[in-house]
Amino acid sequence: MAAAEKDHVYKILELVGSSDTSIEDAIKNAISRAAKTIREMKWFEVTQTRGHIENGTVRHYQVTLRVGFTLDA
Amino acid sequence: MAAAEKDHVYKILELVGSSDTSIEDAIKNAISRAAKTIREMKWFEVTQTRGHIENGTVRHYQVTLRVGFTLDA
Amino acid sequence: MAAAEKDHVYKILELVGSSDTSIEDAIKNAISRAAKTIREMKWFEVTQTRGHIENGTVRHYQVTLRVGFTLDA
Amino acid sequence: MAAAEKDHVYKILELVGSSDTSIEDAIKNAISRAAKTIREMKWFEVTQTRGHIENGTVRHYQVTLRVGFTLDA
Amino acid sequence: MAAAEKDHVYKILELVGSSDTSIEDAIKNAISRAAKTIREMKWFEVTQTRGHIENGTVRHYQVTLRVGFTLDA
Amino acid sequence: MAAAEKDHVYKILELVGSSDTSIEDAIKNAISRAAKTIREMKWFEVTQTRGHIENGTVRHYQVTLRVGFTLDA
Amino acid sequence: MAAAEKDHVYKILELVGSSDTSIEDAIKNAISRAAKTIREMKWFEVTQTRGHIENGTVRHYQVTLRVGFTLDA
Amino acid sequence: MAAAEKDHVYKILELVGSSDTSIEDAIKNAISRAAKTIREMKWFEVTQTRGHIENGTVRHYQVTLRVGFTLDA
Amino acid sequence: MAAAEKDHVYKILELVGSSDTSIEDAIKNAISRAAKTIREMKWFEVTQTRGHIENGTVRHYQVTLRVGFTLDA
Amino acid sequence: MAAAEKDHVYKILELVGSSDTSIEDAIKNAISRAAKTIREMKWFEVTQTRGHIENGTVRHYQVTLRVGFTLDA
Amino acid sequence: MAAAEKDHVYKILELVGSSDTSIEDAIKNAISRAAKTIREMKWFEVTQTRGHIENGTVRHYQVTLRVGFTLDA
Amino acid sequence: MAAAEKDHVYKILELVGSSDTSIEDAIKNAISRAAKTIREMKWFEVTQTRGHIENGTVRHYQVTLRVGFTLDA
Repeated sequence: MAAAEKDHVYKILELVGSSDTSIEDAIKNAISRAAKTIREMKWFEVTQTRGHIENGTVRHYQVTLRVGFTLDA
Repeated sequence: MAAAEKDHVYKILELVGSSDTSIEDAIKNAISRAAKTIREMKWFEVTQTRGHIENGTVRHYQVTLRVGFTLDA
Repeated sequence: MAAAEKDHVYKILELVGSSDTSIEDAIKNAISRAAKTIREMKWFEVTQTRGHIENGTVRHYQVTLRVGFTLDA
Repeated sequence: MAAAEKDHVYKILELVGSSDTSIEDAIKNAISRAAKTIREMKWFEVTQTRGHIENGTVRHYQVTLRVGFTLDA
Repeated sequence: MAAAEKDHVYKILELVGSSDTSIEDAIKNAISRAAKTIREMKWFEVTQTRGHIENGTVRHYQVTLRVGFTLDA
Repeated sequence: MAAAEKDHVYKILELVGSSDTSIEDAIKNAISRAAKTIREMKWFEVTQTRGHIENGTVRHYQVTLRVGFTLDA
Repeated sequence: MAAAEKDHVYKILELVGSSDTSIEDAIKNAISRAAKTIREMKWFEVTQTRGHIENGTVRHYQVTLRVGFTLDA
Repeated sequence: MAAAEKDHVYKILELVGSSDTSIEDAIKNAISRAAKTIREMKWFEVTQTRGHIENGTVRHYQVTLRVGFTLDA
Repeated sequence: MAAAEKDHVYKILELVGSSDTSIEDAIKNAISRAAKTIREMKWFEVTQTRGHIENGTVRHYQVTLRVGFTLDA
Repeated sequence: MAAAEKDHVYKILELVGSSDTSIEDAIKNAISRAAKTIREMKWFEVTQTRGHIENGTVRHYQVTLRVGFTLDA
Repeated sequence: MAAAEKDHVYKILELVGSSDTSIEDAIKNAISRAAKTIREMKWFEVTQTRGHIENGTVRHYQVTLRVGFTLDA
Repeated sequence: MAAAEKDHVYKILELVGSSDTSIEDAIKNAISRAAKTIREMKWFEVTQTRGHIENGTVRHYQVTLRVGFTLDA
């Protein structure tokens, strides 16, 4: 963590993103959606990876994220 | 999960509801209170069940919930 | 545990039951459905309590259970 | 927590109560039994919900509680 | 979850799939193998991601899944 | 918990505070920052204690908190 | 894991075995009972060690196991 | 659990026993010591297995147990 | 652990202490209160750190401890 | 696990790898870096998946691994 | 813990030992192997007990340990 | 985390530090001891806070840390 960020207070947000393609894509979808209203997101942590199955194949991946952003940015 | 809901991004909210009567009633109280400001709640998960005791009897139940709602509805 | 049951080997099954009414009713629904094919169920443990929300109210409860039954009965 | 309770030291007791009827009733049975010898119980937390099955139906619920009471009351 | 699925009882199965290529591919391999004998699989949850190493490189990924399917379909 | 607070619904917020001095100071920094926009905070729980190291010494402590506040105050 | 086993899909079974003698004997009893119907068991993991007490002495040990076996053997 | 035991309220006690010989012997030592003052112990659960090392060899095993006993026996 | 302590059986007690000042002071308050009735306490482990908030500032810290003491001292 | 590997003692190392591209690539980067000094790595387990966010997009993935290698190879 | 050991800093090592015979023997094998290069080991904690199965019988036990040793001895 | 640090691979070390004075001091003691042989430590995480009791008072605090350092610095 760079010096300039060290005195921030972070708030943690919990999101679920989904994707037909990959776990990484589900993460990106959640973060790009949240970026519409929250500017200073800094990190994420994956807390759950799930998905839905249709006709015996993976229909989509669904990833739960905790996302930290600075309150004072 | 129905097809129409599959591409949503969910946000997860954490609430504590209470009731003199039952665990189910504490869940309902938390959700009906949250429904005043959040419209598209879809699911909940109970993460803790506690309560208060007075004079040797259960005074009320207190249930912690994670509640998922769609960001884009 | 009574003496006669002590030398059994148990198998553990994981089920999810649901109910519009209560957590207890969701447990009973899962067990009565499993009782159609498994005879010697002895105990259960609740591992997760979830539910679905529609129009700002609890639509149904959904309870995950581990159920133990004797293999040699 | 009210001001008068803030300087207490609590001791935590672990109990298991049971009931044929409901999870709430199993909680109440454990607490009313403990109330015979412990006066200043203040709160409880459910740590496990189990039960016994007989003939394919729930015979009783069995709930494990951590119960806090003041040492100096 | 769509209305038609709400009254099902689910059974949860635990599987381990593997792949030389990716975590997603290991998930797909487990589910397509299970689809040979189980028809109504609805969702999965990843509970562990492991792998084997040979000569200092990842030889394959190995993913443990809990898979839910309807008992009454 | 005092009687007047018993029927509230709480919302839980997750924050990360930091301090060069102590764990307690990191907690206070997170809460005083949150107090700018949230009035009725009632309790907190520490869920993680981390920190950063520079030149072989602790540069600052970083504490993650869950904070409960009343929705209806 | 040997090369020949690498592409298998495993299913995980959960068992409880018991013994008057030792934890190891409880593990063996569960596995030898399961071996009557499942052929390609490969590994186990102990997830819980419990036991029963009679007249102030250990009556028997009771060990919960997750057991992995190949689906395609 | 036999019928006669079903309506008891249990209290859970936490103990640590040790032995130079084996894990089972550490369990027995804890329980036989507790049996001096508690009569109706019914079950135990191992929650931690530790030990001490001296001169590069295991000096003794140290096992933490939760022990349940009936309050009303 | 010194040789003389090695053959003891320990009992574990769970306490909650509080302090306006610091986490360490809350630990000390719980232990000095317990020392009034229990003599041979040997170690403690912090299992939860919480606190209460009033008017946007930390009112006091509340620390849950497991405390081990020898039964045979 | 092949017969020849069965009598080894393993040491477990904990690593964090990162990648701009994917979770799998972060795993590979950690293992190929460790392979410079450790020869007989056999398996890994993912214990945490995190990442950094810049300007509302995922900047890189950061994966924590436990890696087992034989001490006697 | 004896007074002379109280000011040490410990490092924790994670090992996996195996044995055809017993859990205790797997612990001893891991520690005696580590004793070849590490002198001041003081304690261990079992974090996982697994094993391999061949032809329907336990082939060997495999125990994961955290081992603490003094850095300054 | 600053850009320059982003491509590092970290190794995680587990340490236990102790202090008569405070939790923060126990953390500092562990890190300053490790700094004698490891240069590029970047962060720590507290995983356990314990302590020893003598004559009914806290004799010292003992804190377990996971410490991350760059392998390639």
